[in-house]
Amino acid sequence: MIQIGVIGSSSANELEERIAYEVGREIARRGCVLVCGGLGGVMEAACKGAKDEGGITVGIIPSLNKEDANPYVDVIIPTGYGLARNHLVVRASDVLIAVGGYIGTLSEISFALNENKTVIGINSWELDERRLTKGKYLKAENAHEAVDMAIREVQ
Amino acid sequence: MIQIGVIGSSSANELEERIAYEVGREIARRGCVLVCGGLGGVMEAACKGAKDEGGITVGIIPSLNKEDANPYVDVIIPTGYGLARNHLVVRASDVLIAVGGYIGTLSEISFALNENKTVIGINSWELDERRLTKGKYLKAENAHEAVDMAIREVQ
Amino acid sequence: MIQIGVIGSSSANELEERIAYEVGREIARRGCVLVCGGLGGVMEAACKGAKDEGGITVGIIPSLNKEDANPYVDVIIPTGYGLARNHLVVRASDVLIAVGGYIGTLSEISFALNENKTVIGINSWELDERRLTKGKYLKAENAHEAVDMAIREVQ
Amino acid sequence: MIQIGVIGSSSANELEERIAYEVGREIARRGCVLVCGGLGGVMEAACKGAKDEGGITVGIIPSLNKEDANPYVDVIIPTGYGLARNHLVVRASDVLIAVGGYIGTLSEISFALNENKTVIGINSWELDERRLTKGKYLKAENAHEAVDMAIREVQ
Repeated sequence: MIQIGVIGSSSANELEERIAYEVGREIARRGCVLVCGGLGGVMEAACKGAKDEGGITVGIIPSLNKEDANPYVDVIIPTGYGLARNHLVVRASDVLIAVGGYIGTLSEISFALNENKTVIGINSWELDERRLTKGKYLKAENAHEAVDMAIREVQ
Repeated sequence: MIQIGVIGSSSANELEERIAYEVGREIARRGCVLVCGGLGGVMEAACKGAKDEGGITVGIIPSLNKEDANPYVDVIIPTGYGLARNHLVVRASDVLIAVGGYIGTLSEISFALNENKTVIGINSWELDERRLTKGKYLKAENAHEAVDMAIREVQ
Repeated sequence: MIQIGVIGSSSANELEERIAYEVGREIARRGCVLVCGGLGGVMEAACKGAKDEGGITVGIIPSLNKEDANPYVDVIIPTGYGLARNHLVVRASDVLIAVGGYIGTLSEISFALNENKTVIGINSWELDERRLTKGKYLKAENAHEAVDMAIREVQ
Repeated sequence: MIQIGVIGSSSANELEERIAYEVGREIARRGCVLVCGGLGGVMEAACKGAKDEGGITVGIIPSLNKEDANPYVDVIIPTGYGLARNHLVVRASDVLIAVGGYIGTLSEISFALNENKTVIGINSWELDERRLTKGKYLKAENAHEAVDMAIREVQ
């Protein structure tokens, strides 16, 4: 199964959560597994979307405590790594979709590109292309387009 | 959902694989998620058992290549950590069942006990009880008993 | 002892290597430990600088093979994590200096900021300040100023 | 430089600490770097021994807080991994010496053997040889002999 990572802030705004919810729904409709950091904000909205369509969700969380995961995570991976769990979110994802995001999201985008993966951003970071020597950083206008692009990238 | 880890060798003997298969079936029948290292031997047999009962399986693999996972893994976590991925198998498991096993399995049993978890062994390592200061190391005679004990430990 | 991380590309240009060499020298002169990713380019130049002043150097390398470290590393930490070793370089550093750098360096800058650390950039990435919600990202003109700022940040 | 790991309990008894201290001294006298988990008990005694002979000590600690290291550690690697930092202690060591030890030490011994390294035990765990399929687990009577054996193993 294709595993698609959804990354973004745990303190996202309403618009970002709405987009993340649609991304989650679309991932599930396409029969893909949703991978994320398992907490609130963008992560929770995306998981809720996926569950509303009967998908499978994976949350790779910073702590050792499964109860820190949002209620829409099926499989919880408690790492005990703190924020370094971000690199496992990337490695568990065939391709990633970033919705908005601050510095934590940038740590995931950049690590993913460094691992030669594709990241599709929706309202996310602008990066200086001259320094982007690995991976592929694309932009999408909405959830539907982002999931379309993501699946095309890994097929 | 309760997440039960199944640990044991990738070059297990036939008896161990038969036991692991039954452990996997029983885990799925009880509605639990099966977590393992995602490769062959005990891991593959357990995953096959779980899938034959419609369960969900998670494989946390050493490499970055999802194709290294056995064909019965639903959710693959490629870590790129080599054998150090063992400690993530432990952290992703609420309780663990060890079937047989050599030194790799001992590294998981001991790390699990060190994290204060319960491990149930079937034909597995004998450990000097005077040095077992943390966790709980129990023995079971068969797959059914082991899964019973595992679930009782985390409820 | 203060531990200062030096990050930058393994395929740096001559100017970046000259700056990194000066950063390494200055770190050693101030009695600080130099931490880096242990490979070539910026990392090797910085280590050489530190050793030329009798300092201590630490290289946290991607592979399990100590021979992959550059010859100016005193203490080698072979992680076997691949590029995910970047986050350990960050955690082992009280403060970091980035010299130039591509996407790998961005993964370290962003993870460091996400861990609430200070990063001082010399000819490095420009980042959108509105999204920089944690940590402190400063600019220096040269090696001497960068090490000065770094030490001031952690005292 | 040869990097020798010293492992054992943070709540060791007096005899174990005396042995660990001698192990640390001997490691430094031979010009090797001492690697350990950076905390108290066996780790602290070994570091003190090494520093009393002018050696270099490395402490790979569970937390993100450098102040958790014992006062005899030169280079501190704060991992934020909790007890999973044990596998990094192993990977940073060319060969390991175990002094006494409980379940945490067993997690290091077994992971080291699983990584095909040699571990030399002094008053440490007895392990069922039929299950020891990788690495080399030797016994020494005292600190001097253990360091001798360790160096011979990696030369």
